[in-house]
Amino acid sequence: MARNTQVVADHNAPQITQILAQFVATHPSRGWSDAVDHEAHRTFMNWLGCAVGATHHEAADAALAAVNMLQPAAQASVLGRTEKVDMASAALLNGITSHTFDFDDTHLKTIIHPAGPVASAVLAMAEHIGNTTGNELRVSGRDMIDALVLGIDVSCRVGNAMYPDHYDRGWHITGSTGTLGAAAACARLLKLDVQQTAMALGIAASQPVGMREQFGTMTKPFHPGAAARAGLMSALLASKGYTASPKALEAPRGMMQTVSTKNDWSEITHELGQRFEISFNSYKPFACGIVIHPSIDACAQLRLQGVTPDQIERIELKVHSLVLELTGKKEPQDGLQAKFSVYHGCAAGLTFGYAAEEEFSDEIVNRADMVALRRKVVATVDDSIDEASADVTAVLLDGRRVHVFVEHAIGSLQNPMTDAQLEAKFHGMSDEILGAAQTSALISACWSIGNAADASQVVALATPEKK
Amino acid sequence: MARNTQVVADHNAPQITQILAQFVATHPSRGWSDAVDHEAHRTFMNWLGCAVGATHHEAADAALAAVNMLQPAAQASVLGRTEKVDMASAALLNGITSHTFDFDDTHLKTIIHPAGPVASAVLAMAEHIGNTTGNELRVSGRDMIDALVLGIDVSCRVGNAMYPDHYDRGWHITGSTGTLGAAAACARLLKLDVQQTAMALGIAASQPVGMREQFGTMTKPFHPGAAARAGLMSALLASKGYTASPKALEAPRGMMQTVSTKNDWSEITHELGQRFEISFNSYKPFACGIVIHPSIDACAQLRLQGVTPDQIERIELKVHSLVLELTGKKEPQDGLQAKFSVYHGCAAGLTFGYAAEEEFSDEIVNRADMVALRRKVVATVDDSIDEASADVTAVLLDGRRVHVFVEHAIGSLQNPMTDAQLEAKFHGMSDEILGAAQTSALISACWSIGNAADASQVVALATPEKK
Repeated sequence: MARNTQVVADHNAPQITQILAQFVATHPSRGWSDAVDHEAHRTFMNWLGCAVGATHHEAADAALAAVNMLQPAAQASVLGRTEKVDMASAALLNGITSHTFDFDDTHLKTIIHPAGPVASAVLAMAEHIGNTTGNELRVSGRDMIDALVLGIDVSCRVGNAMYPDHYDRGWHITGSTGTLGAAAACARLLKLDVQQTAMALGIAASQPVGMREQFGTMTKPFHPGAAARAGLMSALLASKGYTASPKALEAPRGMMQTVSTKNDWSEITHELGQRFEISFNSYKPFACGIVIHPSIDACAQLRLQGVTPDQIERIELKVHSLVLELTGKKEPQDGLQAKFSVYHGCAAGLTFGYAAEEEFSDEIVNRADMVALRRKVVATVDDSIDEASADVTAVLLDGRRVHVFVEHAIGSLQNPMTDAQLEAKFHGMSDEILGAAQTSALISACWSIGNAADASQVVALATPEKK
Repeated sequence: MARNTQVVADHNAPQITQILAQFVATHPSRGWSDAVDHEAHRTFMNWLGCAVGATHHEAADAALAAVNMLQPAAQASVLGRTEKVDMASAALLNGITSHTFDFDDTHLKTIIHPAGPVASAVLAMAEHIGNTTGNELRVSGRDMIDALVLGIDVSCRVGNAMYPDHYDRGWHITGSTGTLGAAAACARLLKLDVQQTAMALGIAASQPVGMREQFGTMTKPFHPGAAARAGLMSALLASKGYTASPKALEAPRGMMQTVSTKNDWSEITHELGQRFEISFNSYKPFACGIVIHPSIDACAQLRLQGVTPDQIERIELKVHSLVLELTGKKEPQDGLQAKFSVYHGCAAGLTFGYAAEEEFSDEIVNRADMVALRRKVVATVDDSIDEASADVTAVLLDGRRVHVFVEHAIGSLQNPMTDAQLEAKFHGMSDEILGAAQTSALISACWSIGNAADASQVVALATPEKK
């Protein structure tokens, strides 16, 4: 049979699987700066708020109904709800809800949303393992933060090595690298040795999740959920002696070379254990894809300058081609589609000055004034503009032109959300579900999770009172 | 940021996801020839025997121990054992065991082992859904065979479209296409409509499983198991209203273009509903990778010609480069590694005349005479020889040369195993687990599964008596 065996292969990769396993299994607890540790708490808190906020979304209801077909044991909590399911399903469900609003954290170098896969696996496993009677394994809040930092370092470093080729060819990089991060974190929680941790990473390497074509559907948030579940199970399998290739990540027919033609191994090994990728995590002020944020911010600044929707002849928007590739939906029909519409983002920014989950509701998306306003947005591609920037000119009915250029949107690394802003964002998502008082207590518990005896207090506060 | 967006994309693909969904949801029951239906029964029986046979393998024990950490509900049987687990975990475990011996079926055009993902999902779902009190959905044996034929058609046609590029770049095509086949089959069992079936395929499209680097480890058989599980869950999610892209398979950033640069869409659409890929399924007489079979067969023929191991100076083996790429382990250390050693295959063929699971035991692999004999095998690459053939010359100590060329090994489409041979193979795997009498009854139940009221009899016969 004729076949093309000319797929490029690098037979000289460093032993990435072993190197990462060694790092995950042996790096000292809290072996990083206070700034890194604080960022881990910000990441955890932001993730938890997003998961609570979306807990009654129809995607969550559908996923829970499917999981319930398995008659799961009540091991771990579905955040924001009273139901409990087995820990693997809890990882799945909380991973789904944490990404449903597109409001979670972003590792800007790779567009990975790292907490969804990793934190969802960590909390679900910690809640169950830490509470099992007779279990010798204790899981403290410190163990959880350690696992979160290390797991996110694994997924983001693998992402760094493969980005952008891996993403460009169609992978939703959050799910495809997230399985590895979740496996690493759960291996750490289970206190697996180096060899077992390598097996956990190896089993996870066979399960990258997620295609970009799913953006705008419930399967997008399914990706971090499925990655969380697969990573958790990979660690459980390894803990029971299940084997994988010790070169599963780096070998010519291993994961990374199979899913990416770019593999810069040094991105994984350079300053490993000294530089932590969670340092580069950011948090969204707006409940949509990160590439829309500069455009929303620019239009919100137009509003601050006194421009109102009724004055608009048209809005001239210039952005990088990636922005329109990812979020070019001109006529979104519902809230979910609107999250992939830079046109709607501009309309929301000018009308409201921000765009939280409410501004992406079906009702607002289909409001006549919003439909009319976004039709006045004329978007053009300009690849000299960075994908993290936006150039907006409001052309008014009276002939005036008002120009705003946003280099770094609010929520970027250069212009981060403050702790207080993160708390306000959390309240905005959670108050309706848990009430303001319990939400405040939950926020406090998140800030001190690194000192908690176990996961129980956070989980209890993330559970509404049964009616 | 500089980026290469020059990944080739085909924006004019036919609507593969919709076409397959329409086919799966609406093709008539038993809408194929008697020969196709008989092949489906052969496929089902061979798969079941493999799953029973490997049920006490350490991979099965490890996987079951991990699953038991979830405290699963007793919905569906682990074949060959007394334990029951939730239906998704049963799909996982039976998928693992059915591929553990590398003794399952092979769709030779693509080297897909199609039953592992599809049949494992079908039987687990049928056992539970068909037995749930108050459930309006009945699942007959006919429904199961229909789902098996249609599911296998989906995975193998997608495989045909992407092979060989997809495989060459590192994907274990059994797991990567198997998720789709399992989703299709379970969608059919659940009697989902066209739209929901498209969603099931779409959710599954985000979950291709398996890298070739895992060959020789427990993660290889994990691939069909994980694919079965993911496919089953995709259908459950779709049945509860979970959404995915309706173009998830064929879009430029959909599954197929993301994991393969070759996508011949006509392989999916041509003669759909008229030609059934299960017709091209084959069954292994030897318990190892299919590419070793011609070499084993050739050495077994040397043995029939009177050549004995003590006469051997060396064995000159000429094979296609793929054979050595996949199975080139010169010094296997245990049974699992020996399954990827054409050298051990030759030694077993000459010594025993065959190579079932016993001939891949650690004990025989490490026997001194076997080690010595396989060191006398000198393998060279000759790409003028088809990968389904082997050219073997025994050079004897007395100077004689005995030559055998095998064009089509036993078990190939051109030289298939008979029904009686399949039954003997089944007994060889199952008698030790279930006893000869119960195994005979189980074989009979497999031959008549298409007429069975439900899955209960097959499942009961595949369960050993509790001691």
